[in-house]
Amino acid sequence: MAIEFNLLYESKECGARLGELKTPHGIVETPIFMPVGTKATVKTMTPEELKSIEAQIILSNTYHLYLRPGADIVKEAGGLHRFMNWDKPILTDSGGFQVFSLGNLRTIREEGVNFKSYIDGSDHFISPEKAIEIQNALGADIIMAFDECTPYPATYDYTKKSMERTSRWAKRCKEAHHNTSKQALFAIIQGGMYKDLRMESLKQLVDLDFPGYAIGGLSVGEPAQLMNEVLDYLVPEMPKNKPRYLMGVGSPDYLFEAVERGVDMADCVMPTRMARNGAFMTRNGRIAIKNAVHRRDFTPIDDHCECYTCKNYSKAYIRHLFKENEILGGRLATIHNLFFLINLMKDIRIAIRDERYLEFKDTFYKQYGYIK
Amino acid sequence: MAIEFNLLYESKECGARLGELKTPHGIVETPIFMPVGTKATVKTMTPEELKSIEAQIILSNTYHLYLRPGADIVKEAGGLHRFMNWDKPILTDSGGFQVFSLGNLRTIREEGVNFKSYIDGSDHFISPEKAIEIQNALGADIIMAFDECTPYPATYDYTKKSMERTSRWAKRCKEAHHNTSKQALFAIIQGGMYKDLRMESLKQLVDLDFPGYAIGGLSVGEPAQLMNEVLDYLVPEMPKNKPRYLMGVGSPDYLFEAVERGVDMADCVMPTRMARNGAFMTRNGRIAIKNAVHRRDFTPIDDHCECYTCKNYSKAYIRHLFKENEILGGRLATIHNLFFLINLMKDIRIAIRDERYLEFKDTFYKQYGYIK
Repeated sequence: MAIEFNLLYESKECGARLGELKTPHGIVETPIFMPVGTKATVKTMTPEELKSIEAQIILSNTYHLYLRPGADIVKEAGGLHRFMNWDKPILTDSGGFQVFSLGNLRTIREEGVNFKSYIDGSDHFISPEKAIEIQNALGADIIMAFDECTPYPATYDYTKKSMERTSRWAKRCKEAHHNTSKQALFAIIQGGMYKDLRMESLKQLVDLDFPGYAIGGLSVGEPAQLMNEVLDYLVPEMPKNKPRYLMGVGSPDYLFEAVERGVDMADCVMPTRMARNGAFMTRNGRIAIKNAVHRRDFTPIDDHCECYTCKNYSKAYIRHLFKENEILGGRLATIHNLFFLINLMKDIRIAIRDERYLEFKDTFYKQYGYIK
Repeated sequence: MAIEFNLLYESKECGARLGELKTPHGIVETPIFMPVGTKATVKTMTPEELKSIEAQIILSNTYHLYLRPGADIVKEAGGLHRFMNWDKPILTDSGGFQVFSLGNLRTIREEGVNFKSYIDGSDHFISPEKAIEIQNALGADIIMAFDECTPYPATYDYTKKSMERTSRWAKRCKEAHHNTSKQALFAIIQGGMYKDLRMESLKQLVDLDFPGYAIGGLSVGEPAQLMNEVLDYLVPEMPKNKPRYLMGVGSPDYLFEAVERGVDMADCVMPTRMARNGAFMTRNGRIAIKNAVHRRDFTPIDDHCECYTCKNYSKAYIRHLFKENEILGGRLATIHNLFFLINLMKDIRIAIRDERYLEFKDTFYKQYGYIK
C-alpha cells in the first residue's frame, strides 16, 4: 500500500481528530491544509520557501498538466516531484472538477468526457481510465478518482444519476490503477445537498474499498450552513481509519467547521489567489494592503506573526510593491497567507490534543470578526 | 567622507584595475556590476536572494521613488535601506536620465526641469537642489548629481550647451549636498560623442572635486565601437584614485570592454529585463527558453552554472513556467542572469589579478559567440 493512515487521537468534545498519513514522500500530520500548485508550481513560491513555512503536502492539477506541458513530459522528467523539485508528498486531483467547470465546452457520456482545450480549442477526451493513466504518469503520492462534481443547485434526479455514474467511474478508476504500491487512489463522495444520495454515494464507494475518501461537490456556491449540514451527517459515517479529505476549502471558518466535524485534509487556491490580489489573512481579519490607509503604516501586517514577510517588511513597503505591480508583493503576500493557514492548522492540532478545540475556535472567531 | 576608494591593483596589459570601495553599508569589490532595483525592489528578488548570489551593491531610481511612494514616505520608513530590507550599499541615480527620456512631457530650463508624471499627468519640477533633497531623504550610500543625459545623436552645439549646464548643475548639487559623511555625491561626465566636450566636461567636474565620477550618455543607442572610442580617450584621464562608474551598461561584451579601459562600476536593467522575457545569459550565448526545442530538454540551462536555478531545474520545467506565465519562471531566470553577471565580474577580478584578463576576455568572446 502506498499510504498508511494512523488515527492518533479523537477529540472528546467534537468530531475533530489527529492523525498521521505516511506516504512514499514523507509523513503528513492531520488535520492539514494543502497549498495548491495548479500548474506544478505553488504560484510565486519555490519548494524551499514552501518547506520553510512547513508545508507538508501540496496539490497539483491533472487537467492543467495534461494540457500543458503534457503528462508525457512530466513522466520523462522523472515524475512531478522531480519536474518541480518538490520531494515531499503531492496529491493530484483527477481533472473532474475542471472538466465539468467547462460548461458547454464539454459533453458527458458514460465512457467519459469530451472537451475542448481552453488553450487552443483542440478536442480531448478524459475517461476514468485516462485520468488514472495521466495521474500514474505524474506520479503523485495520492491520486483522485475521476468524478462528476455536481453543481449547486441541481435537481434530485440529476444529482442521483451523476452520483451513480461517479460511483461507476470510481470502480473503473480502481480497476485501471495498478501502481498501488506507490500511489494511493482516493474516491470522491458526491450526492449534492441530498442526504440519502450522499449516504448512498458513501456506501457504494466504501464497498469498493479505497485507501481514502474525499468529499466533493461542497464549497461550490452553497451557503456555509448547508455545507456544515452535509458534513454533520456524512463525516461521522465515513471510515474512521481512513483519511477524510474535503476538497476546495481554505477559508479559516470553513476549515474550523470541517475539522470540528472530523475532516483530516483540505485544499484551496484562496490563500494564494487572495495574496496575489493584495489581501492578507490575519488573526484580526483581512487586510487589503492597497488601501490608502496603509500608505504610511510602517508596522508589519501582523505584529505577532512569525513569517518572513512580517518579520522584515512594513505595510507601507508592501503596499508600495502592490501599487507598482512588483512581483515581490505577491511573493510576500503568498508567504504570509500560506504561513498563516499552515500555522493555524498547527495550532488547531495542538488545541485538539489539549481538548480545547472549541474554545480555540471561539476565540479565533471573535478576534477574526466572524459573526457567529 | 562617506566613501573611501582604494586602488588595489592595476593591470599591466590593459587599463583594467582592482579596487575596494568602502561605504557606510559595507565594502564593494571593483570592478562590480550593480543590479537595478528601480522601484526599491530588484524585480522578483528578495534581499536574501540577492545576497545569496553575492550582489554587493544595488541601484535604485530617484525619479520613480519620488513619484511613488514619495521620498517623504521612504524617509519616514527610516530610509531606503530599511524600507526595502537591504542593508548593503545602495546607489541612487539622480532622475536625470528618466526625466530627459520623457520627451515632450518635460521642459528644460536653467533652474531645472518641469515634467508631467507618467502616472497621473500631474506637474512636477526637479532642480539640482531638489534632486539632492530627494536623494538625501532616500539615504543611499552613493547619490548622483542631476544631469542632462545628452541623446544620441546630438549636434555639437546642443551637446556643448547641455554639457555646460550639466557642469553648472553639478556645482549646485554639490552646494546643496550637506550629508557628505553618509552619502557620497558622484558627478556625471557628459559631452556626447565629441572628444573635446567630454574632456572639457571631465575637467570642469574634476575642478569641483567629487568623490567619484560617472560616465553618462553612453549606451544610449550609439554603435559599440563609438562607446569604446569615448572610453579610450576619456577613462585614462579620469582621476585614478576615485571610482569610475559607467552608467547603463550590462551586456557581457560592454562590461568586458569597459573594464579593459579602466571602468570600476556599471549597472543595467538588461539582465533582469531579459530574465522576465525568458532570455538566459550563459557562457555559450543566450538561451530563449520559450523555444519549442527546449520542450523535452531535461538538462539545466547551463551544466556548469552553480546558481540555484541551474542546480535544481530543467529547461523543460522552466519553459513550462514561462509558457504558463508562472511567476516562478521570472524568478528563476532573474536569479540565473544576475548570478551569471555577478559571477562573471568575480572571474574578471581574478583574471585581472592574475594578469590574464585579455586572454580571459578572448576565450569568453569565442565561447559566447561574439564576432570579434
